[in-house]
Amino acid sequence: MTVIGKYPFQLSPQDCDFREQVSLPALGDLILQAAGKSADENGFGMQKLNTANRTWVVSRMAIEMQRFPKWREWINIETWVEEVGRTSTTRHFRISDEYGKEIGGSSTLWAMIDVESRRAIDLKTIEGLSEAASGIPAVIDKPGRVPSVDGGTKKTHNVRYSDIDFNQHANSMKYVEWLLDSFSLDWHQNHYIKRFEINFLHEVLYGDQVEIFHKQDKMLSLFEIKKPDGNGVCKMKLEWQ
Amino acid sequence: MTVIGKYPFQLSPQDCDFREQVSLPALGDLILQAAGKSADENGFGMQKLNTANRTWVVSRMAIEMQRFPKWREWINIETWVEEVGRTSTTRHFRISDEYGKEIGGSSTLWAMIDVESRRAIDLKTIEGLSEAASGIPAVIDKPGRVPSVDGGTKKTHNVRYSDIDFNQHANSMKYVEWLLDSFSLDWHQNHYIKRFEINFLHEVLYGDQVEIFHKQDKMLSLFEIKKPDGNGVCKMKLEWQ
Repeated sequence: MTVIGKYPFQLSPQDCDFREQVSLPALGDLILQAAGKSADENGFGMQKLNTANRTWVVSRMAIEMQRFPKWREWINIETWVEEVGRTSTTRHFRISDEYGKEIGGSSTLWAMIDVESRRAIDLKTIEGLSEAASGIPAVIDKPGRVPSVDGGTKKTHNVRYSDIDFNQHANSMKYVEWLLDSFSLDWHQNHYIKRFEINFLHEVLYGDQVEIFHKQDKMLSLFEIKKPDGNGVCKMKLEWQ
Repeated sequence: MTVIGKYPFQLSPQDCDFREQVSLPALGDLILQAAGKSADENGFGMQKLNTANRTWVVSRMAIEMQRFPKWREWINIETWVEEVGRTSTTRHFRISDEYGKEIGGSSTLWAMIDVESRRAIDLKTIEGLSEAASGIPAVIDKPGRVPSVDGGTKKTHNVRYSDIDFNQHANSMKYVEWLLDSFSLDWHQNHYIKRFEINFLHEVLYGDQVEIFHKQDKMLSLFEIKKPDGNGVCKMKLEWQ
């Protein structure tokens, strides 16, 4: 068992936005990749779960960056499990540059479900997982409950081929892309994402049309994505500076 | 000078579509990354050109795959320059799996322009480039002239933050994404891309609204993207089986 897994990534052009810095969805993808690698290495990852018809689902995520690294930079993502409860477990991340200097962090909350019944699995029954609980806290505040959007603007999006991942659901980082696409290049040029938080509610499928609600209050952005039947898909909060 | 550069890539979840196989735009990105690395290593890449206010532009590209590799696989992309003329140069690619077995290839045509005047640079004046011309042919047919779309369907797309790359133009692989998003999951599930060809015409900027024309003739798809002023952005051809 490796309590803290450490994974290096070099930022490719496709990870970066027009400022040549890693985009938030690409960074989120790398964080989720690090989580997957660490879980696989410790025997409770998707490689093993797939055969048991179970899957990890992330329910909350927060990312805070002091600096968004640039194209060609190597970054290290260190990750560890803090606590394991019956229905949820916390996994944290420390992001550092190639010299080891901390440039940001992430904190996530996960559950495990049975693929068919969609019911939660008791995490205490998962081999190796409780042993991985290190008690090491996150380097940033844990993700909280993101408030609903009251009022604001609305746009719609049809879930398409390029939105869909292995589970045939929209990839969770696509929600972040839809969010960022709501801001002009000028806004992106002049503002910096201090903290991002997301609560995942229900998954969306290919062909679904979703409604994206957005309320902006100075440097605080609240987003809520809903299905037309009113079921929530996710809620997101961005703090800019 | 390394005549044939060889670059390994491991396919990440974000490179892959719902079938867990590399998507065409992600594969195209890796091919362009290999081109960039090879040019940089031989002294005529973007790292050097940026300081001289010049840039490479790809004008035509073809990709043919016998098999689309899967998530977690390592692939090797070998690349070399075949010929160097005054206004264009050919660069080819051989894609192999981790055992060295060829699984596909690509062939591209490039020009170099002055960033400010947008005029072509005489490639014979570029240090090291003519020496890199290996005369080694492509492993697939070179990209030809893609016909215009006559009739068919039309949809529009507004170029947004997530479409834009370093040059503040829409990333060329986004055109491929828009194209693939025109097909249902069911079509993708049941068809295989045999050959892809693209001709690049004019770049599009953030905020531009483009028109995407599509004509389907059995297993042949023709696409043409235009600006509202009628200027062509690109033409694409897909052969399915």
